[in-house]
Amino acid sequence: MRKVILDCDPGHDDAFAIMLAAQHLDLLGITTIGGNGILENVTTNALKVLEVIGRPEIPVYKGHAGPLLKPLVTAPEFHGESGMDGPVLPEPKIKARAQHAVDFIIEAVMAEEDVTLIATGPLTNIAAALHRNPAIAKRVREIVIMGGSVTFGNWTPAAEFNIYVDPEAAAKVFNSGAWVKMTGVNLTRQCLITAKEMNEFRKLGTRAGQFAADLVAYFIEACEKTAQLPGANLHDACAVAWVIDPGLITAAPTHIDVELTGELTRGMTVCDYRHLRGADPKTDLYRTPTMPFRGKAPNAEAALELDFPGFMDLLYRTLRAYR
Amino acid sequence: MRKVILDCDPGHDDAFAIMLAAQHLDLLGITTIGGNGILENVTTNALKVLEVIGRPEIPVYKGHAGPLLKPLVTAPEFHGESGMDGPVLPEPKIKARAQHAVDFIIEAVMAEEDVTLIATGPLTNIAAALHRNPAIAKRVREIVIMGGSVTFGNWTPAAEFNIYVDPEAAAKVFNSGAWVKMTGVNLTRQCLITAKEMNEFRKLGTRAGQFAADLVAYFIEACEKTAQLPGANLHDACAVAWVIDPGLITAAPTHIDVELTGELTRGMTVCDYRHLRGADPKTDLYRTPTMPFRGKAPNAEAALELDFPGFMDLLYRTLRAYR
Amino acid sequence: MRKVILDCDPGHDDAFAIMLAAQHLDLLGITTIGGNGILENVTTNALKVLEVIGRPEIPVYKGHAGPLLKPLVTAPEFHGESGMDGPVLPEPKIKARAQHAVDFIIEAVMAEEDVTLIATGPLTNIAAALHRNPAIAKRVREIVIMGGSVTFGNWTPAAEFNIYVDPEAAAKVFNSGAWVKMTGVNLTRQCLITAKEMNEFRKLGTRAGQFAADLVAYFIEACEKTAQLPGANLHDACAVAWVIDPGLITAAPTHIDVELTGELTRGMTVCDYRHLRGADPKTDLYRTPTMPFRGKAPNAEAALELDFPGFMDLLYRTLRAYR
Amino acid sequence: MRKVILDCDPGHDDAFAIMLAAQHLDLLGITTIGGNGILENVTTNALKVLEVIGRPEIPVYKGHAGPLLKPLVTAPEFHGESGMDGPVLPEPKIKARAQHAVDFIIEAVMAEEDVTLIATGPLTNIAAALHRNPAIAKRVREIVIMGGSVTFGNWTPAAEFNIYVDPEAAAKVFNSGAWVKMTGVNLTRQCLITAKEMNEFRKLGTRAGQFAADLVAYFIEACEKTAQLPGANLHDACAVAWVIDPGLITAAPTHIDVELTGELTRGMTVCDYRHLRGADPKTDLYRTPTMPFRGKAPNAEAALELDFPGFMDLLYRTLRAYR
Repeated sequence: MRKVILDCDPGHDDAFAIMLAAQHLDLLGITTIGGNGILENVTTNALKVLEVIGRPEIPVYKGHAGPLLKPLVTAPEFHGESGMDGPVLPEPKIKARAQHAVDFIIEAVMAEEDVTLIATGPLTNIAAALHRNPAIAKRVREIVIMGGSVTFGNWTPAAEFNIYVDPEAAAKVFNSGAWVKMTGVNLTRQCLITAKEMNEFRKLGTRAGQFAADLVAYFIEACEKTAQLPGANLHDACAVAWVIDPGLITAAPTHIDVELTGELTRGMTVCDYRHLRGADPKTDLYRTPTMPFRGKAPNAEAALELDFPGFMDLLYRTLRAYR
Repeated sequence: MRKVILDCDPGHDDAFAIMLAAQHLDLLGITTIGGNGILENVTTNALKVLEVIGRPEIPVYKGHAGPLLKPLVTAPEFHGESGMDGPVLPEPKIKARAQHAVDFIIEAVMAEEDVTLIATGPLTNIAAALHRNPAIAKRVREIVIMGGSVTFGNWTPAAEFNIYVDPEAAAKVFNSGAWVKMTGVNLTRQCLITAKEMNEFRKLGTRAGQFAADLVAYFIEACEKTAQLPGANLHDACAVAWVIDPGLITAAPTHIDVELTGELTRGMTVCDYRHLRGADPKTDLYRTPTMPFRGKAPNAEAALELDFPGFMDLLYRTLRAYR
Repeated sequence: MRKVILDCDPGHDDAFAIMLAAQHLDLLGITTIGGNGILENVTTNALKVLEVIGRPEIPVYKGHAGPLLKPLVTAPEFHGESGMDGPVLPEPKIKARAQHAVDFIIEAVMAEEDVTLIATGPLTNIAAALHRNPAIAKRVREIVIMGGSVTFGNWTPAAEFNIYVDPEAAAKVFNSGAWVKMTGVNLTRQCLITAKEMNEFRKLGTRAGQFAADLVAYFIEACEKTAQLPGANLHDACAVAWVIDPGLITAAPTHIDVELTGELTRGMTVCDYRHLRGADPKTDLYRTPTMPFRGKAPNAEAALELDFPGFMDLLYRTLRAYR
Repeated sequence: MRKVILDCDPGHDDAFAIMLAAQHLDLLGITTIGGNGILENVTTNALKVLEVIGRPEIPVYKGHAGPLLKPLVTAPEFHGESGMDGPVLPEPKIKARAQHAVDFIIEAVMAEEDVTLIATGPLTNIAAALHRNPAIAKRVREIVIMGGSVTFGNWTPAAEFNIYVDPEAAAKVFNSGAWVKMTGVNLTRQCLITAKEMNEFRKLGTRAGQFAADLVAYFIEACEKTAQLPGANLHDACAVAWVIDPGLITAAPTHIDVELTGELTRGMTVCDYRHLRGADPKTDLYRTPTMPFRGKAPNAEAALELDFPGFMDLLYRTLRAYR
């Protein structure tokens, strides 16, 4: 079982990420970061999810409240004021640990072999850990993130939300020397949950299935209302699913860096997309690299195509298994 | 017949643009701009093309040697030192007119009704004309450019060559109030010429067909050698073809602006791509807008899909008709 | 007599610049630029000044209405809605010439030997001329500007108004290869006109003296009200006075460039001030260069100290001589 | 006695800062940061200074090796490879504590009342502490820094070294809500040590005097050779002296922020200098504010004038008192 730390900001889709990770991976701990909601709320949400799935022993560590430089931006239009509106859950009995998330990350990575960091919120904690102890860049197995995009953004035309919130942190991660696997919105948009899947969740008859249905009931409506989307994308779950079953996602190595100074493009993941071009110009999004023209050496792997049925199969199995 | 001015920097693909425009449009004049090669060379090249196709009466006007701010970047890796290496042609007998390109553009647009500006090089001349007489923005029918991209660049990961060379000029054009139609590299990559088409050119038996074959013989090799491309893209010809036959290109209205300050993204056309998202997330590149979330009002139309057989049919007919 | 072209945006202090130039220099023409007020107004103001001083034969040419890139910023807080509020003058009988300011500048510089360009507004026209015909950079004797600063700004903490309005144009001028002499606000603040000087103007008993008094009556009040200044600075007059009598200003050669991308510093003239350091650290503003550490070769001369009594003496003589 | 933490990167002038702080202030601890030299070296240098002055009980904590975003820049041209070349000292017997500098800063500030942070290197540690626990911004008495400038820079025309090395950290500090007192290079250049003062150090006959003389012997020569300076500036000592005796420095409240994105000005402390303008335009550097025009509320105090004889008197007394 892969050892992982999940750094997240639950968040409806983060809740799915937690449920997947807790069942299929050796989840050393969950660290929280201000993002979809403020730090207090997302930490509480993480604890609630662990109680729902009966895994209160998994430790939760609070991290940074916001980015180093700019004020925190949250996304109440999509996640509600609590950061995880919809399901009605009691206040959690379990508490976050006293240790700071950044210290836990460093300690765990240095103590264990081959830890994978999965980050599904702004990369503030991961960057701070890399800054405080640069050695972890080479010690982790890889850093798998939900964030950025190979092509277009969602928060601005060029930038995806998680990277937009803390571009400096993202730049730190991509330039750290660690191998980064990116599930950007170009990928996660393929993970589109509609009423059909919601009904399947409900039919599972488990508490987790019920919880999942309640989550997406709210999330689908918010995504539709706010962004005219035809459903809800389980962005964060994709990153965890990739670690659980690498076959679910087709990806290509490429060079990725983060624009920090652009007036229109701050927070954009600049992907050396030319590497991804294939012979057929129309379908080049999904091809292996052919064009090394003036490109930089790959530092990352960009997720391009999701096996959505396979993903849903994993998700249904997971929700069924929690009793 | 549509009245047009063609602002260009020949350039192998510009030569095709001239041949298309001279036959199918009311070509008021050709204006030249430093770009693929230096101004002297591209002006000479334009004159040569007119002599090849027997249209010496079309006036040619020299414009700016380079951008306002930065030194000119040229592309000898793709076009050779002359800007149009390959075909062996005599020095042209015809000369460029004395009037400055920018003055000709202003004068013609103000004198005629409903002129379309087609620009297939850096937008320096067009921007200077808009600066000197802002009234032309509303007087032109539209500005059709080859440049930029809906998605990825070619000169840098984010920027296409024509926009990269003079981003300030491009920003001026997109923000001028004129309606801009953009055939970016996302579109022109679909216009891929290989040995197969080259052989067809040669078989046409016309001087223009021979010239076309000589052009692409050089250009295909340069593109392959420099950029490992599987052929040569006739970028500039797409913009002219769109004006001749709007049905050849599927496009969508969107908002486009140009990044001027980004460290990694300077010269990128930031396209409000969210407007182009369709219900099927995989094929959204080619769909009509569905998502008005926080977007700006469209100022442009982005070319998305080329009818390549239709384009080639137009091109073969054109080359056959020149005797 | 030095041949000069005065590019200006009158403007109270521009009016003094015109009065000085018309009497002491071979003023080939006045070109106008949107700045302190909109182009129509500043052009009218220039014509009015010429009528007041009885020099209707000096040609006036209208230039650009605003910068290439950004919307024009004007300064009605300081100059009123007309750009030269205060003096009550009839509509001018003389008219601006038909030729564009930029074309006049190029033509005159190429036709005459050793022309000095004096620019007391945003540098839009000068930059456009340098862009259209780069040869004028080496053909002019020098470009003397009012704008920028060795140290602090006035429109923002870092930027002076004229440069702030069109930083790209200023960058073009400083990087053109022409030798630039800069009277920035660090210098022009030393040219402080108060009620004392206003009264002297009035006592001169000439029409020009009366006009000067009316100008500063308004200007002093506006500067006091808007910016709590203890008087009014005749910024633009300093640039012309420097050309008339180089001994009035102490200056030092240095390297100057313009910040285009800074979030806080856009439009700042970045002066390689280390060159200006002297042995006495407190008075180093006014010393000759001692420190070549990593600096760039000088492209400009920065005005540091004004002989204010000498300046006023020149001004009084000038106003007295106009009848 | 004021409680202080000294965050530094010794550094010749940092050594003087330590000697002043250890004698006249309640120095809770020294924290180190990569800057003048690499972290290992500057930490060793701090320990050496404590041994020289017989204060081995003062705890030293290692902080960050470099900035979050960019690679560390050091200054061997001025400080030699060790960061404190010149004096020959044995390897220190005392060691740095195990706790991270950032944790020590947070813990001490939260545990004690009214701690003053003095920072004489890049502001990386201070920013990280403010990021990890934003509450310390309001809990510290003030943050006194050596860095930045009211006017010109030293590392680039616009930027001073300490801020240039980590502009993001500096921006964090100035925008934290803490009151910042800045001794920039505009001030510290007034603290000019030459052979005269060096000889006085040597005559003191104490070990500290000897050490001081050895430090400046090297430092004067390096400053002269590298930057043609007429002596060495004890930059960092000024910040500590200001805390010891506020009367030694004349300052003015102003608004200061840090330019992060400027191509020419990155790392510049943008000081709302207009607040510092006085009635006499030539001496306005040293006047109280008169001009609130469009300025922001002060967040800082900018040091303007140093009582150099008073400073030297303090320094001589200090070096004499160490035996």
